[in-house]
Amino acid sequence: MKNFLNPIGVIHSVFKSRQDCPRQSAFSDKKAEIELFPEFEAGLKDLESFSHIHVFYLLDKSDSYSLSVQTGWTAEPKGLFSTRTPNRPTPLGYSAVKVNSINGKRIEINGIDAVEGTKVLDIKPYIPEIDSKKKAKAGC
Amino acid sequence: MKNFLNPIGVIHSVFKSRQDCPRQSAFSDKKAEIELFPEFEAGLKDLESFSHIHVFYLLDKSDSYSLSVQTGWTAEPKGLFSTRTPNRPTPLGYSAVKVNSINGKRIEINGIDAVEGTKVLDIKPYIPEIDSKKKAKAGC
Repeated sequence: MKNFLNPIGVIHSVFKSRQDCPRQSAFSDKKAEIELFPEFEAGLKDLESFSHIHVFYLLDKSDSYSLSVQTGWTAEPKGLFSTRTPNRPTPLGYSAVKVNSINGKRIEINGIDAVEGTKVLDIKPYIPEIDSKKKAKAGC
Repeated sequence: MKNFLNPIGVIHSVFKSRQDCPRQSAFSDKKAEIELFPEFEAGLKDLESFSHIHVFYLLDKSDSYSLSVQTGWTAEPKGLFSTRTPNRPTPLGYSAVKVNSINGKRIEINGIDAVEGTKVLDIKPYIPEIDSKKKAKAGC
């Protein structure tokens, strides 16, 4: 597992602290930017043909978790894995976001619940045929 | 970043090696099972109210990558981040999958392109309002 974590860039965000962040990234219309480290720029080739991307990032402000989470959406606490709390055993952030533009190593995106300087671990193309679960149902 | 990686369980899969795996998890109808380590079972409470989950896992058979990837879908090589190749700077696997049933620490799921014993890093509920990008378009 040595060198498993190899950040490829950082997120530039209007949110300067966790308290600024929206509950869910999709509820934010604030623009943000992913800036890849220069050595990874060539990996962005062809990404402009996708309207959306998956972004995976490190929630490194998170340093503890509980398996029982009071979300604010319901009176009863919920099991950790049925919530999107940032406090998780492996504090991995994830958002599917719209790509506005790509310029060199910079990707302008819409709506992400990450603070300024968050380290990006991976970007994958969003492929609607496999990623958009049109019949998915969510609990409350 | 100490202790960032904290696997919560393993995937039991019919695929015993990378060569067995389908190109994309959604193209597989083989059932698979996520078995959480016992200490995380309480975190599954309430997850049964979601039809689908995001699964994040460690592609620890991957030990190198190239920013230019020949995919088999097109004649020209593509930029790494516009593909879903497992060979990535941070070898993070991701699938959105349907939950068939949850029994204790075991989640039976459909279709995942992971080999037997793959370590699971995180599970998040799939919330269609934010995760299903109905207008998303994919390049070829």
